[in-house]
Amino acid sequence: MTSPMPISARSRRTTDSPISWLMKLAIDDPKIISLAAGFVDTQVLPEDLLREAVAKVFATPESGKSALQYGGTSGLKELRREVAKLLESQGLSNVDPELICISNGGQQALYTVTEVMTDPGDIVLVEDPTYFVYMDVLRSAGIRVLGVTTDDEGMIPEALERRLEELRESGQRARLKILYIMSYFSNPKGCNMSQERRGRLFEIYRREVEREGSFLLLEDACYRDLALQGTPEPYMKSLDPENEFIFLSGTFSKAFAPGLRLGWSYMPPAIHRELCRLKGNQDFGSSNMNQRIMAELLKSGAYDVAADRFRARYLQKRDALVRAIEEFWPSDIDILHPKGGLYVWARLPGINTDPGSPFFEAVTAEKVLYVPGFYCFCDETQEPKPTDTMRLCYSYVDFEPMREGVRRMGRVIERMRGS
Amino acid sequence: MTSPMPISARSRRTTDSPISWLMKLAIDDPKIISLAAGFVDTQVLPEDLLREAVAKVFATPESGKSALQYGGTSGLKELRREVAKLLESQGLSNVDPELICISNGGQQALYTVTEVMTDPGDIVLVEDPTYFVYMDVLRSAGIRVLGVTTDDEGMIPEALERRLEELRESGQRARLKILYIMSYFSNPKGCNMSQERRGRLFEIYRREVEREGSFLLLEDACYRDLALQGTPEPYMKSLDPENEFIFLSGTFSKAFAPGLRLGWSYMPPAIHRELCRLKGNQDFGSSNMNQRIMAELLKSGAYDVAADRFRARYLQKRDALVRAIEEFWPSDIDILHPKGGLYVWARLPGINTDPGSPFFEAVTAEKVLYVPGFYCFCDETQEPKPTDTMRLCYSYVDFEPMREGVRRMGRVIERMRGS
Repeated sequence: MTSPMPISARSRRTTDSPISWLMKLAIDDPKIISLAAGFVDTQVLPEDLLREAVAKVFATPESGKSALQYGGTSGLKELRREVAKLLESQGLSNVDPELICISNGGQQALYTVTEVMTDPGDIVLVEDPTYFVYMDVLRSAGIRVLGVTTDDEGMIPEALERRLEELRESGQRARLKILYIMSYFSNPKGCNMSQERRGRLFEIYRREVEREGSFLLLEDACYRDLALQGTPEPYMKSLDPENEFIFLSGTFSKAFAPGLRLGWSYMPPAIHRELCRLKGNQDFGSSNMNQRIMAELLKSGAYDVAADRFRARYLQKRDALVRAIEEFWPSDIDILHPKGGLYVWARLPGINTDPGSPFFEAVTAEKVLYVPGFYCFCDETQEPKPTDTMRLCYSYVDFEPMREGVRRMGRVIERMRGS
Repeated sequence: MTSPMPISARSRRTTDSPISWLMKLAIDDPKIISLAAGFVDTQVLPEDLLREAVAKVFATPESGKSALQYGGTSGLKELRREVAKLLESQGLSNVDPELICISNGGQQALYTVTEVMTDPGDIVLVEDPTYFVYMDVLRSAGIRVLGVTTDDEGMIPEALERRLEELRESGQRARLKILYIMSYFSNPKGCNMSQERRGRLFEIYRREVEREGSFLLLEDACYRDLALQGTPEPYMKSLDPENEFIFLSGTFSKAFAPGLRLGWSYMPPAIHRELCRLKGNQDFGSSNMNQRIMAELLKSGAYDVAADRFRARYLQKRDALVRAIEEFWPSDIDILHPKGGLYVWARLPGINTDPGSPFFEAVTAEKVLYVPGFYCFCDETQEPKPTDTMRLCYSYVDFEPMREGVRRMGRVIERMRGS
């Protein structure tokens, strides 16, 4: 009998994502109506635009062959230039393509910058609730994740100040390495931060850095291009014109296609150098072919066309979801009306939505899935952890099943309240 | 004045690859003849086959759209099945597609399995000399890299036994987590391991595991499909029919196209679970689109067609390089005649080939680049580190400049010996 393989401390800390079993439920039973999965709308996926861009990239043998060769670690220069132009068209100034890194989706940028900045035992501050997959990454890396309470606009400035003060007072401030903020239509709440809120948070951050030493502001803007109404606020990054403080990350997965697995990030020079070194160790750089294709898509305007389609579609879907909730759920149920992104956050007073709760089981028995708010809150919250919240996603499910799913959940709510 | 950003212990340990400056030299001066770069032959890159496969994947909107959606972390089932079939056609039995993981090139598999297995301070045994990029990964992870001396066939069994004995005697055996072996046409030496050598090494490994506890045998077979003469020996993995010990990794970058960034690995169940969790944190899985394309290429036989083209081309190039060396270099210079892969390893008695040596500077002044053996040997060798070796790569450079590069180096050798 041989002994089991030894595994690393990191692996011992790493679990399956808490929602991977939700995903599995949905895959195992195609009849299930999943309001949980954050996939993109299949119908709108721009295979027509993709086909055109591929034709251009492979128009000549030379061009095709060059797409099939190795590329540089930080990404194809042509694509980094297009990203810089995109960011400038979105209000940033003087974006240096040399400080952009192309990654495998936004996820790899989040993962790798966390590797650059943190050691086990370090501290990261996050909005509470926040993107649970990033919490998985942090836990796997041995990081202490401290939640900062949010309201409808996102992180509450006073709550951030309280956290910073606690860290200073407990002598742990030096372990703080990252402040993580989803600046547009956050996952899971769909918060939209006002310009004033952005400014307040950055001001608190800057003052803290000046007084107590540097840490990184990680601005995750992955949903920015899914603004469904009006023009999105400027990036928080625009408050950092010298490119000293903010790591800005985004993706082409949400408003174009996740199947390309491409994201981008823009950051201070010292971080860029470290990030590219680690990315080089991980994979030498993202697919050169896909980067060529993506550069074409940006150049030709096809990216904007696709993003428009997604926005139009998600606007309809968001409205359909909100209408269904208004139609089928008791009127005291509180939802956030998102101005973009993929999610509606709901609060069901008097009902425990946690996994394993009678409500959760009853909804699952009705073959409907949601993400319990439970999974989105930190282990270390500032307020008692709410037990009556849920995230509903309108991007993947079709109109009819969406309405039906909400209807069935409404029935369960009434049953629960009646009993 | 704000303080500099704090960076992690990992980042502090991570440097640019020692050969990245060699790469930069070649990029900055297109007149340079690089016998250093391990890129693939651009002319043979199968853009025609790729175009056909893309056409199939995007033949219908449904099929195209599904390629653009998210996929699973371990990889597209269709592709994992094709990889299992490929491995079975190459002599393995009962390959379970559920224990295959698709990664961003072979590199990501090496990186991630190292994360699964090791903590800082752990030990990895490698062939000496070995693949320098993997040494970078290990150093970045804080691993102690111990070299095991090689001969023309690869790792010497007695040298491995000596290392294991030393580890037991110094009480460090428990820190040993990985034995890394390139089982085909190794980088940098181009060694070809006989069946007997494979058996001996596996036997020593197995005995050690039985007696002293488990560690992983990491078989990197990335050059297997570039066997230029005869049928390659069976995988070492075939010595592990119950899939308990060996992590086998391979790639589509060498015999098809690096621009797709796809590799595969096949491993024991416990390792597979951990590997997929970490890969999920890194990027949710490799590009679904590229995996669809790759599955098409394997199914249609296009992969074999491309691999044949590469083999035919590299056979010519290898012969051209060997002939040029025979023509232009003194006859006492010792080279290994590789039966596959991309490299010729040379030993130049009496000449110091280290970076910064008069020879290196003179060759660079002649606008020719090679990889000094210096970069390929471990910090902790078993024998004194040789100073007279180099790696020459025949894959990327064209015939004429290859010959010219060898001729110029021959002149420098004669000058050095004359002086």
